[in-house]
Amino acid sequence: MINKDRLRERLLELAQIGGNATDGWTRLAFTKEDKLARGLVKGYMREMGLKITCDNAGNIIGSYGNPTNSPVIAMGSHIDTVPNGGMFDGALGVISALEVAQTIIENKLNVNYPLEVIIFANEEGSRFNNGLTGSRAICGSFSQEELQIEDNNGISFYQAVQEMDLNPDKVYEARAFENKYKHFLEIHIEQGIELEKEHKRIGLVNSAAGQVVLKCTIFGRPDHAGAIKMTQRKDALVEASKLITEIQQISLKMGGHFVATVGKLNVFPNSINTVPGNVEFFIDIRDISSDKLNRGIEVISNTISNISGEFSYFLEEVENELPAFFSSRLLDLGKEICEKKNYPYKVLSSGACHDAQVMTTITDSALFFIPSINGLSHCPEENVHWEDVFLGAEFLLEMVLNASE
Amino acid sequence: MINKDRLRERLLELAQIGGNATDGWTRLAFTKEDKLARGLVKGYMREMGLKITCDNAGNIIGSYGNPTNSPVIAMGSHIDTVPNGGMFDGALGVISALEVAQTIIENKLNVNYPLEVIIFANEEGSRFNNGLTGSRAICGSFSQEELQIEDNNGISFYQAVQEMDLNPDKVYEARAFENKYKHFLEIHIEQGIELEKEHKRIGLVNSAAGQVVLKCTIFGRPDHAGAIKMTQRKDALVEASKLITEIQQISLKMGGHFVATVGKLNVFPNSINTVPGNVEFFIDIRDISSDKLNRGIEVISNTISNISGEFSYFLEEVENELPAFFSSRLLDLGKEICEKKNYPYKVLSSGACHDAQVMTTITDSALFFIPSINGLSHCPEENVHWEDVFLGAEFLLEMVLNASE
Repeated sequence: MINKDRLRERLLELAQIGGNATDGWTRLAFTKEDKLARGLVKGYMREMGLKITCDNAGNIIGSYGNPTNSPVIAMGSHIDTVPNGGMFDGALGVISALEVAQTIIENKLNVNYPLEVIIFANEEGSRFNNGLTGSRAICGSFSQEELQIEDNNGISFYQAVQEMDLNPDKVYEARAFENKYKHFLEIHIEQGIELEKEHKRIGLVNSAAGQVVLKCTIFGRPDHAGAIKMTQRKDALVEASKLITEIQQISLKMGGHFVATVGKLNVFPNSINTVPGNVEFFIDIRDISSDKLNRGIEVISNTISNISGEFSYFLEEVENELPAFFSSRLLDLGKEICEKKNYPYKVLSSGACHDAQVMTTITDSALFFIPSINGLSHCPEENVHWEDVFLGAEFLLEMVLNASE
Repeated sequence: MINKDRLRERLLELAQIGGNATDGWTRLAFTKEDKLARGLVKGYMREMGLKITCDNAGNIIGSYGNPTNSPVIAMGSHIDTVPNGGMFDGALGVISALEVAQTIIENKLNVNYPLEVIIFANEEGSRFNNGLTGSRAICGSFSQEELQIEDNNGISFYQAVQEMDLNPDKVYEARAFENKYKHFLEIHIEQGIELEKEHKRIGLVNSAAGQVVLKCTIFGRPDHAGAIKMTQRKDALVEASKLITEIQQISLKMGGHFVATVGKLNVFPNSINTVPGNVEFFIDIRDISSDKLNRGIEVISNTISNISGEFSYFLEEVENELPAFFSSRLLDLGKEICEKKNYPYKVLSSGACHDAQVMTTITDSALFFIPSINGLSHCPEENVHWEDVFLGAEFLLEMVLNASE
C-alpha cells in the first residue's frame, strides 16, 4: 500500500544533507545542516497538503484534518543527528510517518481522528548536551534554564533558537493543550542486536530505560611535561582514567540492562607537553528500573567522591529522564497486527531514549523498532535492510488505521 | 647596567598579546596572535638599530655588527606559547636577549664578535604537534615532510607558513652556513622547583633530556550508549584509560629523571550518547639518558601492543629529540661569573626541551635558568620574581661580554 520507492528516495534525499557514508552524518540541532534538512521535510509536507506549523521550540508539525473538536493521532521522530552518526536514526521515523500520512491522504483511507506528523527538535542533544528538548517542550518538561546552555563555540541555546528565526522567550508556548493527543506512534531503528539475533522484523517496545547524565570535572594542576617529576604532579587525566576504568567495572557488575558510558571527554589545555590540568567528562547512565538506576548512580558518585585527596572535583546532573512504560493497549494492537499479517515480532525494552518516551507523559504512546544491521548506530556504518524499512512503514500504517477504528 | 624598567615594561607589553593572567596566554605558532607578537619584537629591534632578517622557517634575526668575516655570538628564545600557557616561557629569553643587546649598543660595550638576537619560530609545537622547527631549520634537522602536518582546523604547516607571507618551499634556506656561530646563549625560566627549593638564583644547565613523542590511536567501535549492553561493546576510551593508568605506573617505576605524559587526548565522535569509537593520544617521554629513554619507550610500546585483541591500534613516533649536552666551556665561564658576582647558582639538567638544545648540534651552546615560582609553567599561574629577571639579564650580559673576550 505504501509507496516504497518514494519512501526510499526521500530517505536517500535527506541523507544528502550533512554527511556521507564515509564520515557519517552531522546535523546537529539548529545548525545550517539541520536548517537544510528542516526545509526539505517541510517541502514534503507541503507537497502532500499538510498544514505546517512550527512552534518556538523548533518542532515542525504537519496537520491533516481538523483537530478543533477531536483528539489527534500523532506520529513522528527527529532529523537531528549525533556527530558522525548514521542516516536512519530518527530520519527513518520521520520519513515513514510522512509516507503513512501521504498514503492515507492519496488513498483517502478512513481515519476517525485528525493526524499530525511531528518532527521533534533537538532529540539527540549532542550540541548543547541536552536532548529531547522538542518533545519535552510539547510535554511541559523543558526548563527555562536550558536556554542558557552554551555549545562548544560559546553560542547559547537561546541564540541558536533565535538563529532559526524562532522566539526563545516563547518556547513554553509549544506545550500541547490537555488531552490534545489520542495516541503518539514512533517507529525507529533498534540500534541494538536483539531483533536481528532472533530474526524478528518488528520490535514492540514495552518500556524505555531511564537516563541520567552526570558531568564530572576533575581539577589537577597543569605543569610542564618535561620539567616536573612524576611524583610532583597532579595529572587530572590519569585520575580521570582511573575513574573511567572503575565506572566500566561497576557497570559490568550491575549487569542486566544497566549501562554507563563515558562518551564525551575534554582535556584542558590538551597540549602534548603540558600535564593535564583539568578534565571534564560526561557519564551517561541508564536502566529500565528506577531503583537500579539510582543504585548505580550512587555507586558511581561514591567512587568519584573517593578520588585522591590531592584533586578536587565537581559533579553535577545535566539530564534526567525517568524510565517510561508504553501504552499496553497499543502494544496489544501491535501484536494483533503482527499476528494477522505474519510479521515476526518481539516485545522488548529500549535502552535508547526516544521522543515517544517523553510523549508517554501526556498521551497513550507507542514505540516500534525495525532491525539494525549488526546493531550499529550513532556511526557511519549504521544500516538497515530496505525490506524492513518498507515493512515498518506498512506496520505503522496498519497501526494508525486500526488505532483510529 | 641593564635597564630594568625597560626589560619589565617590554615583558608586560608582550603579555598584552594573546592572553591575560586569568586564561593564560595562547600565541600558537603562525596565528594572528603570534603575528602581532612578532610585529612587536621587530619594533624593539628596529628601535635599537638591529638589522632585521626573517628566514622562511619564520625565525626573526636581529643583527649587530658585520658577520661576514667573523663568527657570531647569538642569543635568543621564542615567543610562541602552549594553549593557555604562561607569560614568561620563551618571552623572558627573547626580551632579556634584546635588553642585553640594547645595553651593549647604548653603552658602546666592547664585544669582539658580531651579535645576533634570534626569535625562533614555533618552539612549542602545540599547533602542529611538532616543536623546535625554527631552530631545527637553522641546524638542518627540519624535515620537508613536516610541511604536510595539519592543525586541528585542517590547515597545513605549509599553508600556515604561507599565511605569514613566507615561502614554505624555501624553509631549507634558513640553515646556517657552517661555523657561522661562535656561541649560542639562551636564558629561560626553570619550569621546575630545583632552584627555588635550594634558594639559588641562576641555573647552569649541563644537559637536556631527550624527548620522544608517540601518537597512539585506539580503534574500537562506536555504538549507541543506551542500546548496546556493556558486554557487547568495544569502548576505545575505556581501553585508552587503562593504558594511561599503566603508562603512569611504568614511569613511576622507571624513576629518576624519567617522565611520560599523556597531555593531549581526543575522543571520536566525542558525543555523550555514543560509545567512543576511536581515541587518539600523545605520549611525551623524556630522560637525560638515551638508554633509559629507549628502555622506557620499549616498555610503553610493549604495554600498548598487549592491548586486548578486540581492539586495533596504531602507534607512530611524531617527535624525537636526542638528549643534549651543553658547552662545558660556557658552563665553566658561567660558574666563574656567578662566583665573582656572588650569584647563588646550581648546575642542573633540564627536563624541558629548548632551542639551545638544538643549537648544540651546530655550535657551542649554553642554557641558563632563573627560578620559577612553585615550579609552575605552561599554565596561567606561571610566575617569577622580577629581581630574578633582572639578575638573569645581568648574568646574560656578563656571559656575552666575557665569552667575547
